[in-house]
Amino acid sequence: MIKVAILGGSGYTAAELLKILLRHPEVEIVAVTSRKEETPLVAELHPSLTGRTSLRCEPFNADRLVARGVQCAFGCLPHGASMSTLPALLERGIRVIDLSADYRLRDPNVYAQWYGESHEDLAHLAQAVYGLPELYGDEIPTAPLVANPGCYPQTGILGLAPLVAGHYLEPSGIIIDSKSGVSGAGRTPKLNYHFPECNESVSAYQVGRHRHTPEIEQALSDVAGEPIEVLFTPHLIPMDRGIFSTIYATPRRAVSESQLLELYRAYYARAPFVRVVEHLPTTKDSAHTNFLDVTVRVVRDRILVLACEDNLVRGASGVAVQNFNRMYGFDERTALL
Amino acid sequence: MIKVAILGGSGYTAAELLKILLRHPEVEIVAVTSRKEETPLVAELHPSLTGRTSLRCEPFNADRLVARGVQCAFGCLPHGASMSTLPALLERGIRVIDLSADYRLRDPNVYAQWYGESHEDLAHLAQAVYGLPELYGDEIPTAPLVANPGCYPQTGILGLAPLVAGHYLEPSGIIIDSKSGVSGAGRTPKLNYHFPECNESVSAYQVGRHRHTPEIEQALSDVAGEPIEVLFTPHLIPMDRGIFSTIYATPRRAVSESQLLELYRAYYARAPFVRVVEHLPTTKDSAHTNFLDVTVRVVRDRILVLACEDNLVRGASGVAVQNFNRMYGFDERTALL
Amino acid sequence: MIKVAILGGSGYTAAELLKILLRHPEVEIVAVTSRKEETPLVAELHPSLTGRTSLRCEPFNADRLVARGVQCAFGCLPHGASMSTLPALLERGIRVIDLSADYRLRDPNVYAQWYGESHEDLAHLAQAVYGLPELYGDEIPTAPLVANPGCYPQTGILGLAPLVAGHYLEPSGIIIDSKSGVSGAGRTPKLNYHFPECNESVSAYQVGRHRHTPEIEQALSDVAGEPIEVLFTPHLIPMDRGIFSTIYATPRRAVSESQLLELYRAYYARAPFVRVVEHLPTTKDSAHTNFLDVTVRVVRDRILVLACEDNLVRGASGVAVQNFNRMYGFDERTALL
Amino acid sequence: MIKVAILGGSGYTAAELLKILLRHPEVEIVAVTSRKEETPLVAELHPSLTGRTSLRCEPFNADRLVARGVQCAFGCLPHGASMSTLPALLERGIRVIDLSADYRLRDPNVYAQWYGESHEDLAHLAQAVYGLPELYGDEIPTAPLVANPGCYPQTGILGLAPLVAGHYLEPSGIIIDSKSGVSGAGRTPKLNYHFPECNESVSAYQVGRHRHTPEIEQALSDVAGEPIEVLFTPHLIPMDRGIFSTIYATPRRAVSESQLLELYRAYYARAPFVRVVEHLPTTKDSAHTNFLDVTVRVVRDRILVLACEDNLVRGASGVAVQNFNRMYGFDERTALL
Repeated sequence: MIKVAILGGSGYTAAELLKILLRHPEVEIVAVTSRKEETPLVAELHPSLTGRTSLRCEPFNADRLVARGVQCAFGCLPHGASMSTLPALLERGIRVIDLSADYRLRDPNVYAQWYGESHEDLAHLAQAVYGLPELYGDEIPTAPLVANPGCYPQTGILGLAPLVAGHYLEPSGIIIDSKSGVSGAGRTPKLNYHFPECNESVSAYQVGRHRHTPEIEQALSDVAGEPIEVLFTPHLIPMDRGIFSTIYATPRRAVSESQLLELYRAYYARAPFVRVVEHLPTTKDSAHTNFLDVTVRVVRDRILVLACEDNLVRGASGVAVQNFNRMYGFDERTALL
Repeated sequence: MIKVAILGGSGYTAAELLKILLRHPEVEIVAVTSRKEETPLVAELHPSLTGRTSLRCEPFNADRLVARGVQCAFGCLPHGASMSTLPALLERGIRVIDLSADYRLRDPNVYAQWYGESHEDLAHLAQAVYGLPELYGDEIPTAPLVANPGCYPQTGILGLAPLVAGHYLEPSGIIIDSKSGVSGAGRTPKLNYHFPECNESVSAYQVGRHRHTPEIEQALSDVAGEPIEVLFTPHLIPMDRGIFSTIYATPRRAVSESQLLELYRAYYARAPFVRVVEHLPTTKDSAHTNFLDVTVRVVRDRILVLACEDNLVRGASGVAVQNFNRMYGFDERTALL
Repeated sequence: MIKVAILGGSGYTAAELLKILLRHPEVEIVAVTSRKEETPLVAELHPSLTGRTSLRCEPFNADRLVARGVQCAFGCLPHGASMSTLPALLERGIRVIDLSADYRLRDPNVYAQWYGESHEDLAHLAQAVYGLPELYGDEIPTAPLVANPGCYPQTGILGLAPLVAGHYLEPSGIIIDSKSGVSGAGRTPKLNYHFPECNESVSAYQVGRHRHTPEIEQALSDVAGEPIEVLFTPHLIPMDRGIFSTIYATPRRAVSESQLLELYRAYYARAPFVRVVEHLPTTKDSAHTNFLDVTVRVVRDRILVLACEDNLVRGASGVAVQNFNRMYGFDERTALL
Repeated sequence: MIKVAILGGSGYTAAELLKILLRHPEVEIVAVTSRKEETPLVAELHPSLTGRTSLRCEPFNADRLVARGVQCAFGCLPHGASMSTLPALLERGIRVIDLSADYRLRDPNVYAQWYGESHEDLAHLAQAVYGLPELYGDEIPTAPLVANPGCYPQTGILGLAPLVAGHYLEPSGIIIDSKSGVSGAGRTPKLNYHFPECNESVSAYQVGRHRHTPEIEQALSDVAGEPIEVLFTPHLIPMDRGIFSTIYATPRRAVSESQLLELYRAYYARAPFVRVVEHLPTTKDSAHTNFLDVTVRVVRDRILVLACEDNLVRGASGVAVQNFNRMYGFDERTALL
């Protein structure tokens, strides 16, 4: 049994993590922390967990977590808070899976440019492994700190990885048009996410400046061995969960749909959570699962990739547990099917 | 042309009023006020009105409204704010249609009991007419102050009026089980109305203590000539608009469905916005209209009334314009079809 | 390992069953049958199951199921089809959990009255156990045929059982006002369930004549030891899943909310899937789970019960597995948490 | 008063037309036809019209429509049915606004290629005017037959017209990624549009082969004076109404956002229903209106256009009335504000 803590227990990713980890046969959740002064029962914060856990939120205290035997912490804090909180754990030998964006971008200048503040924890940033198991899986078992990937980026990166790995694409001008359910915006009430505002409506947001752009480019450039540039446009869709990314790219050479499907199948042959499908996928098929569904089409000399996932499971808490499983040598699928 | 002002321009009922009044051939909107310090364009507050109006929000100032020639003001302020703001207008001879709850309950003790604060404007309360045109229509043309009815109460009152008028029902134990879209909760973001919380979910709220209860009872008791007591339970439904009320009552004597339908048709023969239907209505049929649809059934010796409406139009801004039309002698339906 | 078959694999309850059973450590799904001529892959019928099962639908053939070693069959057929299909299995010694309505009503006259056709399998009807584990749990382990309960009835029955068991209520005039997501209507496209018809709308249906009425009354009368009569009104809500029942009843004697909550807690002390809560529940809290959440209020001398559940899990496939677990001596919660 | 008929009265575009035309001061609706054998009241087909019209559906009969004095017919028939039905009216001197696709594509070979059948009415095809008022407005007043534009195409064409008119773009590789509410799929129940299938889900459909592609290209090529090629991908969004198109194009020369906004404002200066906005639009802002909202951005050397509209009003019935107003010399906005 691995003893784990969840930091920042009030949001949607924490609730989803709790549901998954409560099903995990090798995990004992020993603490849930909150930055608020109150220490409510976790089941009060998340009534869906009534009867599932008697844990109470507590203030973050690194020494107390050590004393309780915590071996691994899942960080569900906002970016910024992560890099000021997690060092205390890492220095005490607790491994961390951080669901925030703080340790995803290797280059602190890129972080500063997109997040508008300097990175405060360069030491651990250098040790962090980007937690996309299908691409960085070999580094995860020994990583002290796993930077869990963003929700949108996974559809873009896994949707394009086989193509950029094989140098099938022109490396710039790749368009990622993504549609996301509203839970991706978090649990803090704002006018944009007020039901009567976003229900029955579609909108684009942060056009040309969404922070997931450099994350996608970093990973795809790693895979390609050359700089990849994407144009990423997120949209808000009136549904709880799900991301659907429609990706448009220009091939360097003619290639058929069947060749591409074969390429994808081969590339993901050992990835249990990437499903290469022939039909057009829909977000509902992967809702509440850790699967990422992807297919590919050739239209008018362009390549279209259609990729979808559940933004809270595959896009956050599910892949976090997939990373956890790799870190501790469990079957990658444990608690995730 | 009647010059009107809208007080409290940032919410949903104000936006709906603006849309209706912009279509009204006898109305000129000369001012929209806001309690905030900024004075944004109305079309910035409500982008749906882009290109429809160049009005800018302004702070409330009674003398300025008089100077502009305002004859009638629509109050879209929260309860409490209404009774501290509207007297200044009424004293200056401006007629008011108040969409808040402040002037609906004739008895200030009942107001204090349900709203938790004393009524501050007893003078005007005594002059206020409850603005349900189908029941109090004769008093509206001369009223200086019309207390526009609540959204839920209209379904309960108009749903039951023919029955209580004819003394068909036991006067207590009447159950009104209402289902409302989320726009009824207003435009201020709160966790309960955050999209991922209330989407894909149904819940009841304020069970046994919703403030529309005494409003329903007051009007039905007026109609009945005896005290009527209801048990009212509101529910939140994942949709923008619409109220559906399922009403259960015990008949004093046996009566058939066809007799009841005939009763309703006769009762509402001259009410252009109450549609007595034989089929089971659905909120969508009256969405974005000023109609209230109602039917009645007899089941196992109980009478069931099913009534629905659009909570923002019929339930608020539409009926306000219906009242306005009566106040100024226009055809009741002007701008409402 | 218990070998099971699923009969009628194309609908929502079958898909949900497959998901739950694929997680069950003691189950092997050996066949999925379909009444259609085609024999598609189960994962083609339900793309969400891609990669989870390689089973192919097959025509129903009792002998073949016996030959494959099927010990237990889950019937996901429509009513009518169940009673003409299941006898062949029961006669061959295969135990059956029937999710249709065919074996729920003990009295074939009541069946004929509400379903409009005679019951064709009186022999097995006499052996059937009503599969509501919290009330009939002792009979389930030995039952050859379990009549899995309806979705609505569970909220009504479990919502009222503590009260009628203790004779707290007047036995007639009990009102059950239920709100259900659209998946309860099944997977066959019809105009009523066409997205643009039922989205953004609430409606009542089958007022006074919904077939779940006698099912609720049968079970509650069993619990009460006297005839219980209910007035049941179902409503369609624009969401996928969830049933919320608001129940109104007249107490025989004065009783407080805290006494009632205590009564409920005691009554369900050993029921792991009934959560007696103090807060007002919402369907989202039990969505995708086998929990039924219930609370109780006293309002103006009436008792209100608020009960909710996921109609596909607790309301159908989850409780079917709960019954299965009891039939085969597994922990009741296996595969359900 | 112009006497009009509506052909094919059972669908969503007919219902929307009826609502708009009932508000039109210069229109008398004298007939609604249906291809079904029954002749229901229009208000039975569309309960939302209860109390608004006493018309009854009738079988199509050209002579009878002439005898009734019909001057203009709105065709709400499916493609194929239009070209076999409308000639009888046109030959009798009745002007037609056809909401189907039958007369939109000037080249019958293109029609045959995309619609899979030969065009049967070449004579009238040659006379048809493409009814996009902002681009073909001068030809509409005298047209005997107006081919009302498709819903998606209007966002693509009006979204790009200023750019292609000014030769700002590379003429191929233009990507139109569109998101549509489900009402765009019509009123016939199918599994794809069954509420529990498409609610809480996003999917793409007809990737690379949607029939609106050649319609967009025809109009943009007209505007550009050179062939324009687009890659159009439609998506289904869980909402009733609204189309949001995100358009990506490569500029031929560097241009700034402010220059582009100015270009759009100038281009649409006299188009009362195209709103060039600076903010990011959302479909809700134009829902239930005839407005098309558009803005433009420059991101990483690409031009992004964001255009949205209500698919039933602006995308079909509203623009049909806008065309009607131009055909008969009324103010373009009559009945549309």
